[in-house]
Amino acid sequence: MRGGDPERVALPAGAAIRAATPADLEAILHHRRRMCEDMGHRDAAVLDAMVADCRGRLRRWLEEGVYRGWLVEREGAVVAGGGIIVSAWLPNAADPQDRRATILNVYTEPAHRRQGLARALMEEMLRWCREQGFRAVTLDASDDGRALYESMGFRPTPQMRLDLTR
Amino acid sequence: MRGGDPERVALPAGAAIRAATPADLEAILHHRRRMCEDMGHRDAAVLDAMVADCRGRLRRWLEEGVYRGWLVEREGAVVAGGGIIVSAWLPNAADPQDRRATILNVYTEPAHRRQGLARALMEEMLRWCREQGFRAVTLDASDDGRALYESMGFRPTPQMRLDLTR
Repeated sequence: MRGGDPERVALPAGAAIRAATPADLEAILHHRRRMCEDMGHRDAAVLDAMVADCRGRLRRWLEEGVYRGWLVEREGAVVAGGGIIVSAWLPNAADPQDRRATILNVYTEPAHRRQGLARALMEEMLRWCREQGFRAVTLDASDDGRALYESMGFRPTPQMRLDLTR
Repeated sequence: MRGGDPERVALPAGAAIRAATPADLEAILHHRRRMCEDMGHRDAAVLDAMVADCRGRLRRWLEEGVYRGWLVEREGAVVAGGGIIVSAWLPNAADPQDRRATILNVYTEPAHRRQGLARALMEEMLRWCREQGFRAVTLDASDDGRALYESMGFRPTPQMRLDLTR
C-alpha cells in the first residue's frame, strides 16, 4: 500500500506492508521459528517448544500493543515480517526515556529475499519509532542481517553476556 | 558478612555485602548518577532530571522485586552497589526462558576502588541469577568495567543500536 510513496523504500510490484493484528499471531510465530532455524537451530522439538512458549505471551502483547508487528504481503500471502517490543526501562543520562524499543523477528521467506523487503520493513519500523518519540532502537543482529543494519546506521553496543549454563 | 566463606570472593576487612531494600532507594540513585558521571555525563541538570525520572519507577521496582540490589557496606557506609532488573521476554531457541536478567548500576566509590568490591558484588549477583535459574545474564559494559566483566567470562553480544536523534 505504500510502495508508491516516493519517501518510502520501493517494494516489488504487488508487495505491500501492513501492520500486524492479533489475528497474525501464527504468521509471526512462524517467522520467529524460521529465523531461529536460519540461525542454526534445527532441533524440531526445541523449536516446537519455543513456539508454544511464545504463543500466549505474544498473543497478549499483540493485544496490549506491547508487541507491534509489520508484515509484507505479496499476492495475498505473508512473505516477510518484523516486530518491535516496547518495554519499560530506567532512564539514563544518554537516553532519558523510560521505555525502550527493540526490533525482533525480522524474517523474509527465502524465495522473496534480496528484493528489499527487509529494508522496507525496517524503514517502516524506524518511522514508527520516530513517530512514537523513541530516541534509539536496538536489535540483536543475525549474521545474515548485520550488513543491512550497518547500512542503515546501526552500530554495535557495549552489551556483554555471560552464559550461566556452562 | 560473607568474606570468610572460602567459596566467595574475599572482601577487605570490615566490608560486607547485603541485599538492598526499598529504604536504599537514594543510595542506588546516587550510584546511578555517579556511574553516568564516570561515563562522561557532567551536565548537572541532565543528571538531576535522570535521577528524578528514575525515582518513582525504581521505588516501585524495588518493592515489587523487579529490581534487586546489592550493596557493599564498610564501616557503616555504603561504598559500592549493583543491581539486576528482571524483565519479561520472548523465549528463543538459544534461550528458552521467558524472562531476562540484566545487571546495571555497578558502582564503587572512588576511594574504595581496586579492592575487589565490584568483583564481589558481581559474584553475588551471578550467584543469585544461578539460584533463580537464569541461563544467561547481560549488561552494558562501561569502558572502566569491561576488563572485569571479560575476566568473569562475559562476551560481546550481537546487539546493535541506531540513534534516532541524529
